[in-house]
Amino acid sequence: MEQTKNTFKLLLELFEKYLEEEGFEGFPEVLASPASHIMQVKGKRIRPLLLLTACHVFNGDMKLALGPACAIELFHNFSLVHDDIIDEADVRRGKPSVHIIYGTNKALLTGDALLLHSVKMLVKTSNEHLAELLKVFLKATSEVIEGEQYDMDFEEMNEVTEHAYMMMIEYKTSVLLAASLQMGAIIGDASHDDQEHIYDFGLNLGLSFQIKDDYLDAYGDGETFGKKIGGDIIQNKKTYLLIKALESATREERNTIFNLFNEIDEKKKVSAMMVLYNGLGVKEKTYEKMEKLYQQAILSLDNVSLDRHAKKPLYELAEMVYNRKH
Amino acid sequence: MEQTKNTFKLLLELFEKYLEEEGFEGFPEVLASPASHIMQVKGKRIRPLLLLTACHVFNGDMKLALGPACAIELFHNFSLVHDDIIDEADVRRGKPSVHIIYGTNKALLTGDALLLHSVKMLVKTSNEHLAELLKVFLKATSEVIEGEQYDMDFEEMNEVTEHAYMMMIEYKTSVLLAASLQMGAIIGDASHDDQEHIYDFGLNLGLSFQIKDDYLDAYGDGETFGKKIGGDIIQNKKTYLLIKALESATREERNTIFNLFNEIDEKKKVSAMMVLYNGLGVKEKTYEKMEKLYQQAILSLDNVSLDRHAKKPLYELAEMVYNRKH
Repeated sequence: MEQTKNTFKLLLELFEKYLEEEGFEGFPEVLASPASHIMQVKGKRIRPLLLLTACHVFNGDMKLALGPACAIELFHNFSLVHDDIIDEADVRRGKPSVHIIYGTNKALLTGDALLLHSVKMLVKTSNEHLAELLKVFLKATSEVIEGEQYDMDFEEMNEVTEHAYMMMIEYKTSVLLAASLQMGAIIGDASHDDQEHIYDFGLNLGLSFQIKDDYLDAYGDGETFGKKIGGDIIQNKKTYLLIKALESATREERNTIFNLFNEIDEKKKVSAMMVLYNGLGVKEKTYEKMEKLYQQAILSLDNVSLDRHAKKPLYELAEMVYNRKH
Repeated sequence: MEQTKNTFKLLLELFEKYLEEEGFEGFPEVLASPASHIMQVKGKRIRPLLLLTACHVFNGDMKLALGPACAIELFHNFSLVHDDIIDEADVRRGKPSVHIIYGTNKALLTGDALLLHSVKMLVKTSNEHLAELLKVFLKATSEVIEGEQYDMDFEEMNEVTEHAYMMMIEYKTSVLLAASLQMGAIIGDASHDDQEHIYDFGLNLGLSFQIKDDYLDAYGDGETFGKKIGGDIIQNKKTYLLIKALESATREERNTIFNLFNEIDEKKKVSAMMVLYNGLGVKEKTYEKMEKLYQQAILSLDNVSLDRHAKKPLYELAEMVYNRKH
């Protein structure tokens, strides 16, 4: 474990160095300040880390992986900037959002510039892998946009199906994690089968992560970073928990839930919904689903045709992602 | 002339057919309606026409040019959707803007999807030219975003320099025309010198076109499509005319101009500004500039190493663009 931690540390250092030195080459000067704001309000760099680790386990050339890793992180940050405009979110990772500091119009253009620049960074990997990398990248990124639109549409609905919900979180979150891993594998000259397995690993890991996110909103242990317990309930978010509740609720309970959507007293709203959730076995059903997805992720990773020792960093990364305290 | 007109007609038909049949392959279904709205509220398809004509005069393979032509038009339409959000413009080409029909958030995501899809369409040209095409495309598109930010910044200023203004219109409008031509030339295996000449041709053509746009706002013959005479004056737009006026105005005249920025009576504002423009020789100076730029464009086209007859469609296209009634 200690040794793998060192590997991650090393990969992240390489990434930060590359990002700092080459990541903004050719980026519009006039938008550099808002762009570096969002890039510096660091997340955990989970996507570049997935890409670099995948490249590492397949013994790929790390020099070729840094541009694509940078592309993925730039794209992710583009999506945060535009999502915060759409969701009117004032805070991101504990700091004011880009549109709060720089205004909506500048934030919009900053997002556009980050998106274009992400492609530019990918193209920098001008080698035999380019066409394949572009294909995977452009499919996933397009699906992220699509997922965001689904998410917006859900806000207008009282109820969504489990199928629609799973598709939304797949597109909005999971495909980019999956694509990151596949891109790393491509650079490491992985076979098509292995590319598929590692993609599925990322996809299911992302899904389990997202359902756990829903779970922790109601059943987490106290305040989590930037989010309060029951925040999803207050916002009428169409979470996996709500879907499971509505699924097994009586007609009367369903009406109670729909009426709760209009409850203004937040404390009352959360506690009333939690009583319903508890009565309907929502906690257990959600826990079961997220555990099952996580096991599927591990199974996909098992199928990757490298020996277990070589894959160790990916197993550990999966655990880190899944067991994060938010 | 008649024969060239037929060539243009043919190229545009090819383009529309391709756009309809393949242009939206893989585009997010959930955003297809707003995307096809903006694409169908047709402009003159000037950018794809430039690209296809350049490919044609260099005897390039038209099948390889349709994807890139589509990419350029998709990108242009992305920029219109986001610009209309930024400018709060309710109308585009005589029809309601995307954000008016579908709401700002959906319009924002539609723009994002169009932008990504433009790259996807370009990548479809998976051949020996891809890396070169991507380079030209990504540079120009990034500059377009930058130009839009300059334009926004100018709104907050009382005065901009001629240099800053020329750079803004170069980025916001001209580089994409220039890149369209260069991309067509690349597909036609043009030499680097010829690529440069045709790029400069497009750049200067775009600049002359943009200055003429300013000119026509004050000195056009009556109402033009979707724009009324003096519209720029009413909006305090930092046009070439205003820059020339401020340049040669006395301190007193400058103050009069700055005070006019706050004049609420639109009719009074326009006529007072026109009196100043006329007294300061703005009409002549602007006319001279746009003619000079147009001549530079023609000179660059003269330098392209094809015989004059082969280049004929480009000369005629230049004339069409420059002499349009808006």
